[in-house]
Amino acid sequence: MRIETDSMGSVEVPSDCYWGAQTQRSLKYFAIGDDKMPRAMIRALGLVKQAAAKVNLTLDRLSPEVANLIVEAATEVVNGRWDDQFPLRVWQTGSGTQSNMNANEVIANRAIELANGQLGSKDPCHPNDHVNLSQSSNDVFPTAMHIAALEQLVHQLIPQVTDLRDALGTKAGEFDGIVKIGRTHLMDAVPLTLGQEFSGYVAQLEQNLTRLQHTLPHLYELVLGGTAVGTGLNTHPEFAKRVADQIAELTGLPFVTAPNKFAGLAAHDALVMTSGALKTLACSLVKIANDLRWMASGPRCGLGELSLPANEPGSSIMPGKVNPTQCEALTMVCAQVIGNDTAISFAGSQGNLELNVFKPVIIHNLLHSIRILSDACDAFKTYLVVGVQPNLSQIETYLNQSLMLVTALTPQIGYDRAAQVAKQAYQTGQTLRETCVALGFLTAEEFDQSVQPVQMTHPWDSNI
Amino acid sequence: MRIETDSMGSVEVPSDCYWGAQTQRSLKYFAIGDDKMPRAMIRALGLVKQAAAKVNLTLDRLSPEVANLIVEAATEVVNGRWDDQFPLRVWQTGSGTQSNMNANEVIANRAIELANGQLGSKDPCHPNDHVNLSQSSNDVFPTAMHIAALEQLVHQLIPQVTDLRDALGTKAGEFDGIVKIGRTHLMDAVPLTLGQEFSGYVAQLEQNLTRLQHTLPHLYELVLGGTAVGTGLNTHPEFAKRVADQIAELTGLPFVTAPNKFAGLAAHDALVMTSGALKTLACSLVKIANDLRWMASGPRCGLGELSLPANEPGSSIMPGKVNPTQCEALTMVCAQVIGNDTAISFAGSQGNLELNVFKPVIIHNLLHSIRILSDACDAFKTYLVVGVQPNLSQIETYLNQSLMLVTALTPQIGYDRAAQVAKQAYQTGQTLRETCVALGFLTAEEFDQSVQPVQMTHPWDSNI
Amino acid sequence: MRIETDSMGSVEVPSDCYWGAQTQRSLKYFAIGDDKMPRAMIRALGLVKQAAAKVNLTLDRLSPEVANLIVEAATEVVNGRWDDQFPLRVWQTGSGTQSNMNANEVIANRAIELANGQLGSKDPCHPNDHVNLSQSSNDVFPTAMHIAALEQLVHQLIPQVTDLRDALGTKAGEFDGIVKIGRTHLMDAVPLTLGQEFSGYVAQLEQNLTRLQHTLPHLYELVLGGTAVGTGLNTHPEFAKRVADQIAELTGLPFVTAPNKFAGLAAHDALVMTSGALKTLACSLVKIANDLRWMASGPRCGLGELSLPANEPGSSIMPGKVNPTQCEALTMVCAQVIGNDTAISFAGSQGNLELNVFKPVIIHNLLHSIRILSDACDAFKTYLVVGVQPNLSQIETYLNQSLMLVTALTPQIGYDRAAQVAKQAYQTGQTLRETCVALGFLTAEEFDQSVQPVQMTHPWDSNI
Amino acid sequence: MRIETDSMGSVEVPSDCYWGAQTQRSLKYFAIGDDKMPRAMIRALGLVKQAAAKVNLTLDRLSPEVANLIVEAATEVVNGRWDDQFPLRVWQTGSGTQSNMNANEVIANRAIELANGQLGSKDPCHPNDHVNLSQSSNDVFPTAMHIAALEQLVHQLIPQVTDLRDALGTKAGEFDGIVKIGRTHLMDAVPLTLGQEFSGYVAQLEQNLTRLQHTLPHLYELVLGGTAVGTGLNTHPEFAKRVADQIAELTGLPFVTAPNKFAGLAAHDALVMTSGALKTLACSLVKIANDLRWMASGPRCGLGELSLPANEPGSSIMPGKVNPTQCEALTMVCAQVIGNDTAISFAGSQGNLELNVFKPVIIHNLLHSIRILSDACDAFKTYLVVGVQPNLSQIETYLNQSLMLVTALTPQIGYDRAAQVAKQAYQTGQTLRETCVALGFLTAEEFDQSVQPVQMTHPWDSNI
Repeated sequence: MRIETDSMGSVEVPSDCYWGAQTQRSLKYFAIGDDKMPRAMIRALGLVKQAAAKVNLTLDRLSPEVANLIVEAATEVVNGRWDDQFPLRVWQTGSGTQSNMNANEVIANRAIELANGQLGSKDPCHPNDHVNLSQSSNDVFPTAMHIAALEQLVHQLIPQVTDLRDALGTKAGEFDGIVKIGRTHLMDAVPLTLGQEFSGYVAQLEQNLTRLQHTLPHLYELVLGGTAVGTGLNTHPEFAKRVADQIAELTGLPFVTAPNKFAGLAAHDALVMTSGALKTLACSLVKIANDLRWMASGPRCGLGELSLPANEPGSSIMPGKVNPTQCEALTMVCAQVIGNDTAISFAGSQGNLELNVFKPVIIHNLLHSIRILSDACDAFKTYLVVGVQPNLSQIETYLNQSLMLVTALTPQIGYDRAAQVAKQAYQTGQTLRETCVALGFLTAEEFDQSVQPVQMTHPWDSNI
Repeated sequence: MRIETDSMGSVEVPSDCYWGAQTQRSLKYFAIGDDKMPRAMIRALGLVKQAAAKVNLTLDRLSPEVANLIVEAATEVVNGRWDDQFPLRVWQTGSGTQSNMNANEVIANRAIELANGQLGSKDPCHPNDHVNLSQSSNDVFPTAMHIAALEQLVHQLIPQVTDLRDALGTKAGEFDGIVKIGRTHLMDAVPLTLGQEFSGYVAQLEQNLTRLQHTLPHLYELVLGGTAVGTGLNTHPEFAKRVADQIAELTGLPFVTAPNKFAGLAAHDALVMTSGALKTLACSLVKIANDLRWMASGPRCGLGELSLPANEPGSSIMPGKVNPTQCEALTMVCAQVIGNDTAISFAGSQGNLELNVFKPVIIHNLLHSIRILSDACDAFKTYLVVGVQPNLSQIETYLNQSLMLVTALTPQIGYDRAAQVAKQAYQTGQTLRETCVALGFLTAEEFDQSVQPVQMTHPWDSNI
Repeated sequence: MRIETDSMGSVEVPSDCYWGAQTQRSLKYFAIGDDKMPRAMIRALGLVKQAAAKVNLTLDRLSPEVANLIVEAATEVVNGRWDDQFPLRVWQTGSGTQSNMNANEVIANRAIELANGQLGSKDPCHPNDHVNLSQSSNDVFPTAMHIAALEQLVHQLIPQVTDLRDALGTKAGEFDGIVKIGRTHLMDAVPLTLGQEFSGYVAQLEQNLTRLQHTLPHLYELVLGGTAVGTGLNTHPEFAKRVADQIAELTGLPFVTAPNKFAGLAAHDALVMTSGALKTLACSLVKIANDLRWMASGPRCGLGELSLPANEPGSSIMPGKVNPTQCEALTMVCAQVIGNDTAISFAGSQGNLELNVFKPVIIHNLLHSIRILSDACDAFKTYLVVGVQPNLSQIETYLNQSLMLVTALTPQIGYDRAAQVAKQAYQTGQTLRETCVALGFLTAEEFDQSVQPVQMTHPWDSNI
Repeated sequence: MRIETDSMGSVEVPSDCYWGAQTQRSLKYFAIGDDKMPRAMIRALGLVKQAAAKVNLTLDRLSPEVANLIVEAATEVVNGRWDDQFPLRVWQTGSGTQSNMNANEVIANRAIELANGQLGSKDPCHPNDHVNLSQSSNDVFPTAMHIAALEQLVHQLIPQVTDLRDALGTKAGEFDGIVKIGRTHLMDAVPLTLGQEFSGYVAQLEQNLTRLQHTLPHLYELVLGGTAVGTGLNTHPEFAKRVADQIAELTGLPFVTAPNKFAGLAAHDALVMTSGALKTLACSLVKIANDLRWMASGPRCGLGELSLPANEPGSSIMPGKVNPTQCEALTMVCAQVIGNDTAISFAGSQGNLELNVFKPVIIHNLLHSIRILSDACDAFKTYLVVGVQPNLSQIETYLNQSLMLVTALTPQIGYDRAAQVAKQAYQTGQTLRETCVALGFLTAEEFDQSVQPVQMTHPWDSNI
């Protein structure tokens, strides 16, 4: 053990740890659950420290020696070398101060080590006066929240949703010529093609991608430079803008300094809205996954229109059973995302005066939603969508049985007589054609002229 | 118009209205939406005023003349005669003070009228000093919330859920001998009877009734007598107990005075929990309604195991279509109840110090949930459950087709070989029996001995 | 009573009603709660029928006589003349078919009346064959949902939020020179101006307006012309585009025909996302309203920095009490909006195959959220924000007491010694200045040079 | 690597792992997020396997040799020896089949190892035919869910909430004589004691404990013995009852076999309701934590009535700042629990026919809620409640300033004149006493007789 100190006094810290007194205190006072600050946040905190040191150097606030030490240590944090030095839980101070100090302490001690100094000595690098220079947890932590959210959205979720959309689009193309019965209210309805059905999924995901894109601009606004309450106390007038530019350069993403920093410390509306977009995506995916598993239900006692890939045995007691498990994993993920959104919304509404102190729970849930949606979309695409196959005979059987082809007759014989045909056919078990002729509404030829399932799916396409 | 006054001055009120200055002010300042204080709350406020006047009389706080006038006017409010005199919105002061004053004002003016006095004169009956005597909005309104919730739970929801459970129970009995294929993960599984399936719904509702009963005791605790902050300032030491007894007598329900009134003003946990029980009921009903509509899906291109009553035409364009609309109304109601629970939970968490000021939104949502669940359960029972019929031929067809009957062979031939049988039968289209014999695992006689669907549904019943 | 008929037979309808058989059936089967289809939806259904008749006329699908009758009757519906003829509940068939038929029936009968025909005769105007021509409930109802949502968003909510933002902006300007203590974690922090605090609220609402604007484009996409399952069966190839143009002309809003109609019938993601934006706005408003009521808490035992307008007496038992009731009404509205979002999300996820049958509950909740947010923002602005006043002496007293002015010393004496100053001052009750000098860290002159509250709020402004 | 097989074929598994083919497949197909099946579930699965083997032995379904091997291996799983052999994610098949198979595979291979057999040989112990004998994932997994939930509720959460209640009760006793101003709507109200305020928290937690207790009986019902769909296929008629007895014996908790197993596989209402009780507890805790941090706000510019323990430095930029971080951690936990409840409710509503396939997401969220609530209650009690101290001078200052003491005069001078006193005192800055005398309503002696803050807090106690 070695002694580390902070403004409250000294604390014993395991000698092989880089963290300092405040991290150690947090471990004691916040031994709550297992949820650790996510990797994406550790990386983002490293990026903030790296950028701040570089800017403080250009503003002559840090000596080149200290600045370079911080940059080197922070770069190692960014790259994941010290992940095990970030042991703190999500359930800590609501400003994330303890995780910010965790970063300050680890980087300071690592910088000291690089300079052959003594861990805990704060010489030549002090966690507050150097690593946290021109910063407050109140602007560092929300800045890291935005960076982490954006990197995950831009590099993980959006590509995965795009790929899923494309995979569904490929299937929509493949299935273009397959005419099948439509179902509304779960009941037999007029026909459409399986490709049209899949085109609906593609359209849903396409719009979700637009929604996700719409949430990015507010996320690109960083509050770093606002320090404790948004006024920018103890910073250089150039700091906020330069540090946003620096973070943009480091990440390759178009970050800017937030025009109003008071709002950005005291509320996290941009993250609440992003969660709303993730929740909307989740609602879309529930619908898509439910459709696929119901169409694949059976194999003999369900709808049976689709076959899903048989990836693994489905039952510990029923031999030979295969289940739509990718749909199940995906819809469970969606249930979680919907729940996470409730947590984020509650937390997002509870800011008071100059600070919202629900920051860790907000970013924990948001990154969780992004991560599991990304991974689940990938698995769903790879292990289900690309392998889904139509059961053509079953599809055709249904199509020929349906009574709702009668709808095509409405323009000619009117709604009320068409209804009479459908009901009588249902009761007698006869075909629509037989019934229509028997009732004297149309000749068989007229019937055949009107009731053409393929034509019904593309009513305006004279080539079909 | 006539002039009414309150502690802030005078206000013009329409001359044919019984309400006074504070109600009129609220109409101006809170012209928000259309949601009015529910009828059940108006009745409950009348009950509180009636009970308080009776108790104040026995405690010599009110003269017999004034007490009797208040009791008479309040009784009219209880009975619904003056519902149009309660125009205030839910979105008002968070303590419900304005609705309490609305009751005080209407009762005072009606009492004045009964005594041939002049409306607005507060003579011989003053809204605060007489009608509200020994009370504060802070104890009146939550007391009325509990009374309203309980009357609706005990007289509406619990009987309707009980009736629905019984109607499903009757069907479970009728369907006892109908063996059908089970489905897990939507995929064909081992058989059970349709009666067993319905018995699950009965068991779900049975447990929901127990849950609802468990929420009642905390609701029976009334905070009346706590006045402004729970200390009981300005009340007689006997008031709280006697007024609870009086309300118990008036309603026929076992109300008691709350042992701790501070909690009952500052939080509404009992109502939050009741909403949680309603939400749980909603989750159960979603499951039941979904089952019934999927089993009734078709008629020709779905599962088609059940027929639901055809109550009304289902489509404005597809003639002859009939849809599971009772399931749809019920599940929409459940979605609302789940949403209302979120609103109630948020509101219930937001009390500060001596008062929770989200009272109107809590009771509005709770009564809404109770009302629509009650009515929807009634409609669902009356127009769907009692008329549901099995399609026996379809049920039998599925049963005979299923590959999962192979499960019955596991104890004899083991899981792995049973799986081999199921897969080969699926691929070749042969029956399980043919395949099992072909693979040499069992003789045909042994197969028939083991695979008996009826027996599989009651494995321990030697009479079947 | 008169007899009305539909495809299921005849029904008795009150003779003074314009609705027909299907509306009457719905009244019987769906006597659930009190929630009626909102006025904005009735208007929107009228707009759809009006537009469809005009387009069907140009496409020679309707005779000029019948088309003109429909247009005239539908215009009356749009204008609210027949609102009492729309008695149906939200809790009905999940496609809104019954409300679509309600519109068809009322318009048909009113058209018949205008032509001096006999109500219920369907001559010369048939509810299905003429009023519903080229339409299905499945495309009519979601089209009306989008129209209703947009008209309320564009004409009600967005203007009200804009006005509230502007009123807060005016106050931010007025309060620009008022330096006050900041509070983070509810604890004393470094100073800012009251104007800066209000500028945060302005920035929050500004971003919310951007978010609401982002939801509009997907809402402008109308599925009318998709009919029963999205294929456009029974419509003219020009219908979809022309009818969207017609609705755009009638409403003055830039509606277009949806590029993919399958998604638009089977899911309502655009409405789910809009609800997410409303929920985000609600979260912002909770924060703002909480800030204002806490800053106005007291008058003598709270923070007491602001005075809110005294609109009405606050207590039925505590004379002279005035409460932050506009904050309470607004935050209760926000709780409801958060709950409504849960209901909408659940409903939005539950589509199956070609149709989502939770349409009425989705639009009911969305319009409810829009309405109460609009009205509450208006009341909050009018009766609170424009009248809010700072209590300057209280603000100044706090500012001078705060220990966190010590933060301005950090760049000079370092974090650890600054902390020592703050703690010792807190324990001894001395001023920061006395303590700093006593500890020998700075001279009194140096202290005064550094600790300048006004300068601390605008650290980069050399003119202050 | 070694080869493991299942009914789909062979898979390579790392040679130092005990799991088999199905676990390995799951790792491939469900690489989604980081959320692993919780420890409490692994333990519960071990308990189920242990109990089943013992009962199967008594029923002569297993040989003593195999049964004893299973019991020994399963006991090791229960005790946590093989936790690293349970690598599967929550996001897998919705029945938990893969985690059930993971348990079967690990126990079978460990049993084989104990018998000096060859891993993967399934000899002498087969994962399905022996370890899973008389079981299906469909009954094993929900049984384990109930066991895990109950052990955590009974051994963790209920004791921690009880301790927190008791700690608050101790404080309520300590603070009994401290008279302070009450606040309703955040505004000054009539007085109460600090002990009364804390007694409200005690009462809230007391009722929450009752609510939690009410959820236990339905959780004690186990579906084990229902196998695949609830009929009990492939089990001995005594199995269900004996295995519940066995689990009761192993855990010391009063488990029973569920009277209806169909409901218990197809729905998880008991867990949904338990989550509702956890959510209600969360709402209570938000209120309590908010009260404490607001009363402790300051130290100089807030309410300042309480001092919380200063556990750690509060700010990285503001030296000497101490924040109510235990309140923050606790309320963040509560936000999560409220969100988790939404996820559980959604999942709980989505069962279809014989199975709910959202089992893992339900138990993941429920155990998460229990865990973080337990830990946060413990930290909150230990590091905040036991150390909270009143600031007596501040409390007394407020009390003497408050205008709402005027309420005590209402019985004598009436509401309207009392309001006049309060308003005039507020405007002139005079005391209530001076104003009351000046207005001629009472003499100074009469005023002093009536306005006695201590008496106002215990109006019926003649000893005060």
